[in-house]
Amino acid sequence: MSELTPPDIAHLGPIELLTPRPQESVEFFTEMMGMEVVHRAGQSVYLRGWDDYQIWSLKLTESPQAGMGYCGFRTWSPEALERRVALIEQAGLGRGWEEQGDFGVGRAYAFDDPDGHRFKLYSEVERYEKRVVTDFKNVHGKQPNRAIAVKRFDHLNILAGDIRAQRDFAVGTLGYREYERIELDDGTLGGSWMSVTIAAHELIYTKDAFAPQGAHGRLHHAAFWVDTREECLRAADIWIENEVYVEFAPSKHNVAQGFFLYGYEPGGNRIEVTSGGRLVYAPDEPCVVWTQADRAKGQAWHNQTVQTFHTYGTPPFEPA
Amino acid sequence: MSELTPPDIAHLGPIELLTPRPQESVEFFTEMMGMEVVHRAGQSVYLRGWDDYQIWSLKLTESPQAGMGYCGFRTWSPEALERRVALIEQAGLGRGWEEQGDFGVGRAYAFDDPDGHRFKLYSEVERYEKRVVTDFKNVHGKQPNRAIAVKRFDHLNILAGDIRAQRDFAVGTLGYREYERIELDDGTLGGSWMSVTIAAHELIYTKDAFAPQGAHGRLHHAAFWVDTREECLRAADIWIENEVYVEFAPSKHNVAQGFFLYGYEPGGNRIEVTSGGRLVYAPDEPCVVWTQADRAKGQAWHNQTVQTFHTYGTPPFEPA
Amino acid sequence: MSELTPPDIAHLGPIELLTPRPQESVEFFTEMMGMEVVHRAGQSVYLRGWDDYQIWSLKLTESPQAGMGYCGFRTWSPEALERRVALIEQAGLGRGWEEQGDFGVGRAYAFDDPDGHRFKLYSEVERYEKRVVTDFKNVHGKQPNRAIAVKRFDHLNILAGDIRAQRDFAVGTLGYREYERIELDDGTLGGSWMSVTIAAHELIYTKDAFAPQGAHGRLHHAAFWVDTREECLRAADIWIENEVYVEFAPSKHNVAQGFFLYGYEPGGNRIEVTSGGRLVYAPDEPCVVWTQADRAKGQAWHNQTVQTFHTYGTPPFEPA
Amino acid sequence: MSELTPPDIAHLGPIELLTPRPQESVEFFTEMMGMEVVHRAGQSVYLRGWDDYQIWSLKLTESPQAGMGYCGFRTWSPEALERRVALIEQAGLGRGWEEQGDFGVGRAYAFDDPDGHRFKLYSEVERYEKRVVTDFKNVHGKQPNRAIAVKRFDHLNILAGDIRAQRDFAVGTLGYREYERIELDDGTLGGSWMSVTIAAHELIYTKDAFAPQGAHGRLHHAAFWVDTREECLRAADIWIENEVYVEFAPSKHNVAQGFFLYGYEPGGNRIEVTSGGRLVYAPDEPCVVWTQADRAKGQAWHNQTVQTFHTYGTPPFEPA
Repeated sequence: MSELTPPDIAHLGPIELLTPRPQESVEFFTEMMGMEVVHRAGQSVYLRGWDDYQIWSLKLTESPQAGMGYCGFRTWSPEALERRVALIEQAGLGRGWEEQGDFGVGRAYAFDDPDGHRFKLYSEVERYEKRVVTDFKNVHGKQPNRAIAVKRFDHLNILAGDIRAQRDFAVGTLGYREYERIELDDGTLGGSWMSVTIAAHELIYTKDAFAPQGAHGRLHHAAFWVDTREECLRAADIWIENEVYVEFAPSKHNVAQGFFLYGYEPGGNRIEVTSGGRLVYAPDEPCVVWTQADRAKGQAWHNQTVQTFHTYGTPPFEPA
Repeated sequence: MSELTPPDIAHLGPIELLTPRPQESVEFFTEMMGMEVVHRAGQSVYLRGWDDYQIWSLKLTESPQAGMGYCGFRTWSPEALERRVALIEQAGLGRGWEEQGDFGVGRAYAFDDPDGHRFKLYSEVERYEKRVVTDFKNVHGKQPNRAIAVKRFDHLNILAGDIRAQRDFAVGTLGYREYERIELDDGTLGGSWMSVTIAAHELIYTKDAFAPQGAHGRLHHAAFWVDTREECLRAADIWIENEVYVEFAPSKHNVAQGFFLYGYEPGGNRIEVTSGGRLVYAPDEPCVVWTQADRAKGQAWHNQTVQTFHTYGTPPFEPA
Repeated sequence: MSELTPPDIAHLGPIELLTPRPQESVEFFTEMMGMEVVHRAGQSVYLRGWDDYQIWSLKLTESPQAGMGYCGFRTWSPEALERRVALIEQAGLGRGWEEQGDFGVGRAYAFDDPDGHRFKLYSEVERYEKRVVTDFKNVHGKQPNRAIAVKRFDHLNILAGDIRAQRDFAVGTLGYREYERIELDDGTLGGSWMSVTIAAHELIYTKDAFAPQGAHGRLHHAAFWVDTREECLRAADIWIENEVYVEFAPSKHNVAQGFFLYGYEPGGNRIEVTSGGRLVYAPDEPCVVWTQADRAKGQAWHNQTVQTFHTYGTPPFEPA
Repeated sequence: MSELTPPDIAHLGPIELLTPRPQESVEFFTEMMGMEVVHRAGQSVYLRGWDDYQIWSLKLTESPQAGMGYCGFRTWSPEALERRVALIEQAGLGRGWEEQGDFGVGRAYAFDDPDGHRFKLYSEVERYEKRVVTDFKNVHGKQPNRAIAVKRFDHLNILAGDIRAQRDFAVGTLGYREYERIELDDGTLGGSWMSVTIAAHELIYTKDAFAPQGAHGRLHHAAFWVDTREECLRAADIWIENEVYVEFAPSKHNVAQGFFLYGYEPGGNRIEVTSGGRLVYAPDEPCVVWTQADRAKGQAWHNQTVQTFHTYGTPPFEPA
């Protein structure tokens, strides 16, 4: 057995979301989520949470349909980047190098996962320079005094037809660690929760209910971090007061233990406000396996899962 | 410049604390902190927080004086262990191998830091086997329905005379990353906050006020994790109601941003109940430097630091 | 119009609950709710929350079936007691005086509401004498360092067939103020939330789904107060870990705005852990009217109401 | 002994604060506290918290010096108003009737307390009409999605030379209930906490350190309510980030048990963000007496009181 080593990827992000209602989407992320617009280019607007160390973590791009444009992964070093690119090319999923991956992102390698989601791997990045330094010298920006205090893009849940194939790619090729998974009675996987840090989940694949009808490359949700569960509850109040569509009221997941609030931003993408969650310190932590019976109990505290949570994704899928 | 890679050490702990009042110390950690006794051997009692993955994380050993017995570090692999042992031996600080580092801990290498604190490096460990599995399959134990819900030993703050020497050893020899430090006006360091994960701080060195008089190898505090700031506040209520000595009422640190409560366990060791704190995702995050003027402002929100916080440690030091 | 004056009743409680599993019920309230046994007499056990000013607030009495034994109301004065007794007698619902209403309760007047729930009105009461006085001189007991910190019995929700009749009795005869109500499409009331203080709700009547089949005098739930929403969340964890039946995971009510957790104690009675809730300072606050359409939206944040919440009560009703 | 009855006054407020920097004060209450400007007249700006039932609860008036303009008290009825006016006139402290007490306030009776603070007693008031009604039908306004969520003006702490005289006036003439007081070693009172509801404190008198030198009629602080302790902590972050002067970092009072954050608004008045606090349900609750020794322990959890907290008030007092 080879030596257990920490992953080559340092973290996930930034993310590009597509939206057919760009102006309203920008307004949602600034007025409801407390994020800040830092750049505009073409049909895209770049935003940051108040403690993102990079210049931005969310790019909203006008598009006929909602969904994920791409998601980035930052490696620990240029060497780690080269190592992973070689493995991706071996897997036959590479799309090639871009001299500038995006605004504020250096040389990047684009690739697709087996289900057709687009990703970019990069090592170099521009840091956000805080303009005013207060007592809080060790935060990357100024906590907003509007909306809720979204600190950063936290994690990604994407839908796929064959979770096992996705998981094997993420673990084997990208070097992710799998912390939890759902094993369905038919032997397939219902979901896989993976991470490259001690944070419980960063990259999640869950089953696309419409995969048999041809759906692929869809987004389940993008999650944004706030520091307390109370801030999730406050977010729910603010969303309701401002007619944001709330899909799933605040509660806790059994899987990964994150506290959550789910709704749809005006473009249609499912957005999570998240806090808490399990930390995994053991380098050899065994993967937690949830059975179909376990998951039938719902979320934490026997909270039944809202039906659309199992079916809705972006772009929306219309069975023929 | 060599390639940036994640650390060889996975995490810190377990820790041994010495106490001249062992029975009362055990009672404090069980009845006030919600920890559980899992083993007894000789003059030592082994305890665990409810979500420790190892069998135990705190060992209380009867001793004429309070202080730290030793603190462990777990490496990612046996190979990583060998690499670090070689570096420690180069530094001339090794004490040698122990076939069994402690109860539930495999082969371990003992060493001292330059200030004389004892540590052990190990790779193999026994995991805690949960007896009853409830809905919460991904936690390592059962949340207590007594006292406060200490999840695990979280971080360590130790006193030293020459912080720069300690920091250089921890970074250069152990492979820690330095996230924050205090640079005093006289050019010496006042403290250094280091970690091997995204968690803001695991290993902290701060200046021993009595080092010029010969103090060395002393403990500032051992910190135990709870999931919410509200749990820190509840801990303060419970401590006051039960006559635990509260030294520093709940508030927030500017450095590392942890929420805290400090008191002394009956044996005299300073204990922190902690939650929150900065997460560092960037592999190349620059170290935050705090000046003497910055620190004169106190903790977060202009909260003045309690005087004994700058001087008290264990074992207590009596200047001749 | 007569002068608007504050109510003659000061507050609600204590409450007697009936249980077919008395030992397990006592264990639930001590080990899961953090209450304390203060007295035993016959088939009854008396308990208190840590900040109850009376000697006790909950009496558990062995009985073939679960349900409410009786609930007390304390008046501002002996004169206020006499005034209300006269009105109850006018209404033809009086049962007569008891020289001692219960342990620690003075002279009391027993009566039934129109639906057949038993109540007692009293003015004199014994206060709890705290044995040890710590820094917290203004609390009535010692915060427990076990389970959750239930401060007191907070409010009562009882089922009835004709809510309007109940409401009219509570407002007209007892002097309650109605703060909120549900008006169903058929013109009947679905529920009425009443109080004698600024706290949003103390006495609640909601529709008994089995009233048409003859159910009456049933309990929906008894609610116990904790100081924070975080404590409700912690209660849910502890309940799940200890196999308490959780019926409705923590969330917020739109009506009265209380944060909640619902489960069944071992005897079968539905118990709420509650915090927060609307405060009503205006002496002439208009009653908030919720329509059937409003209520179809569920609880706060579009959280759908668990089905049994609309039907289950104690004693259980078995349609013939 | 006469019958114990609930008070004639329903609640305290609204309040007028004087400020030499009116524009910055308005900006503070809107941008830092989340309040809303609802009216302007002359040199005054009227604001409301998001759940105030009246049109406004805070009036900021330009003035050469900071301090309290006046504070209102609303009675349960016109009859209760007349009763209290008669008692005030008996006490020789009346100033006379005003046909309109203020914007949105009906006929009012102005008077001074013995120390020279101005008050107005009234019964009729205009209610705030919410423009958009969302799911939250039972709140009086829309929760802001900026700054912190100040719900309402909560309580008032004013300085005086002779606390006993103030307390006797408030209890004997206004009908307040005294819940807690400080008895100093010299037999004088250090403070008195009074209320007309179950909420622990609404009207507080504490000793003016400069009374011997002639200070009178000064304000200690005006307190504004938020629903959670977490919101107090968030307020502290936002204040620091925006250079609001933070005098006393978030912590808990032993007296009345309120959680607090104190700072100075730009005009110089001390402002508290408060949550929690003791509830008093017993109509005959004995007054809690704190000794000088008790108070020397500081606030809750042994948190030492900031020195200026004992001396600073508005208008500032310059000893000759």
